[in-house]
Amino acid sequence: MTDNPVAPRTPRTPLTLLGTGAMGTALARAWLAAGHEVTIWNRTPARAEALAAEGAVVARSAAEAVAANRLVIVCLLDDASVGDALDGTALAGRDLVNLTTGTPGEGRTRAAWAEARGARFLDAGIMAVPPMIGVPDSGGYVLYSGSPELFEEHRDTLAVPAGPRYVGADPGFAALYDVALLSAMSGMFAGITHAFALIRPDDITPKDFAPLLADWLTAMAPAVHQSADQIQSGDYTRNVVSNLAMQVAGNATLLRTAGEQRVSPELLTPYMKLMERRLAQGHGEEDGTGMIELLALRANNDRP
Amino acid sequence: MTDNPVAPRTPRTPLTLLGTGAMGTALARAWLAAGHEVTIWNRTPARAEALAAEGAVVARSAAEAVAANRLVIVCLLDDASVGDALDGTALAGRDLVNLTTGTPGEGRTRAAWAEARGARFLDAGIMAVPPMIGVPDSGGYVLYSGSPELFEEHRDTLAVPAGPRYVGADPGFAALYDVALLSAMSGMFAGITHAFALIRPDDITPKDFAPLLADWLTAMAPAVHQSADQIQSGDYTRNVVSNLAMQVAGNATLLRTAGEQRVSPELLTPYMKLMERRLAQGHGEEDGTGMIELLALRANNDRP
Repeated sequence: MTDNPVAPRTPRTPLTLLGTGAMGTALARAWLAAGHEVTIWNRTPARAEALAAEGAVVARSAAEAVAANRLVIVCLLDDASVGDALDGTALAGRDLVNLTTGTPGEGRTRAAWAEARGARFLDAGIMAVPPMIGVPDSGGYVLYSGSPELFEEHRDTLAVPAGPRYVGADPGFAALYDVALLSAMSGMFAGITHAFALIRPDDITPKDFAPLLADWLTAMAPAVHQSADQIQSGDYTRNVVSNLAMQVAGNATLLRTAGEQRVSPELLTPYMKLMERRLAQGHGEEDGTGMIELLALRANNDRP
Repeated sequence: MTDNPVAPRTPRTPLTLLGTGAMGTALARAWLAAGHEVTIWNRTPARAEALAAEGAVVARSAAEAVAANRLVIVCLLDDASVGDALDGTALAGRDLVNLTTGTPGEGRTRAAWAEARGARFLDAGIMAVPPMIGVPDSGGYVLYSGSPELFEEHRDTLAVPAGPRYVGADPGFAALYDVALLSAMSGMFAGITHAFALIRPDDITPKDFAPLLADWLTAMAPAVHQSADQIQSGDYTRNVVSNLAMQVAGNATLLRTAGEQRVSPELLTPYMKLMERRLAQGHGEEDGTGMIELLALRANNDRP
């Protein structure tokens, strides 16, 4: 396939892509634009047709698609869909890269499943939305974990849709990093939602407030380095600037303001309650990092 | 007082500061270092002694401190303490700047109280912790709202501890901006706490994870501009990249991962429930911004 007459001078690795939803379509276009031969399969064939017009080879079955190329990329709805699509395909000798969103446990189980079938395996977490795929300097990237040999061999190909970051041989790590980052973002967006709800009833123009909000969150985000340092040292009182006792006192102002502005505090209260629990346990000299202890569930699901 | 033999060549405005807790002490030191004559008062006199050794004039009462200078800065525990301290002092003709943490409503009420006593009034919200006060380029700043004349006249003096940002004549605005920013930060820190709790049980080193986390939150923070644009246009479906239906589907992976890692999802679930409510109301084509509608409480405290 590398002697395709329209191939660029440097032969690109041909690849198979299973799944042409919004993300799969963006991936396929990025690889096609970079000169790769791309064989695609989608459970609903109609969704693959637009890509055929753009140069993709449409396989009639997942088995045919897997047979077409050694490098097989999978970007489906969920891990169960990956099992369904690959069941009965010939995976021996294949390099399987799973871009399907999943949990760390699903990544590890799927890695063992793939290795049992003779395939090398990489799990991945895409830290980007489809419009960022194939766009240089979009800020998006893809986390990879699993076979280091597969990653090294295909690094250039994997770099086409978005910058690749290899985070370890444990195939669960890509999903773990991915979910941890998305979870943190979810918290940030919850806080942002509360903030905009607060200012809305007044005469503050959201566009006047937004730059201060973006600057403030950006200025505070590096606090994560302090948290990491505390966790690694095991000392949650290390270099504390604003301690839990002061923060709990400050929370009262946040709640009274929500009341004045007639905004439900439901997005803020769980974190405040956790602070109060940690404070009540005698940890008023810590900052917030020690609260991770309260989130860890024991085997019996009881709190520590 | 401006002919103090050790004063710098340009006379600095002398000022009074009520309250020498951690923040008040940092403020006093910044003004002293900049060559201002600073008269201080603290309810617990012992806390003012260190500052006397650094050049501050210690007043024997709040009334004496207020009488000493036209510019009176107040940085006390809470709004009730401000009332207690200033009760019976001669405020007519004074310029009162309230750096005490409070709500927008407290700022407005205190402004009317001060104006009834013949004082000009500025309320303020300090977006900094004490170690950032008086440190150029610390990233900290102080929000001010209320009398524009007071702000303009004392801008240079107010700029000494941290950059001043005037946000409007409504004396409630400084506190509203302040609390909105702190509330958003609280959400971000809740998300960060969950993220660190997730990675802790595994072999991922917190210091390896922290740079990705800081970068990710910094990259996502500018989404607030999109939210502001949607709120101002009234169209929550405008320029949506990741819609609510997709986000709710993705939440399942976040929750399953929390379960695998034995981390309580309590910091994430309120936002997820809000997403589900908005989705159930038929808003799956929006992104998250429309959820501010669900946080607005009606006069009867019922949900909209």
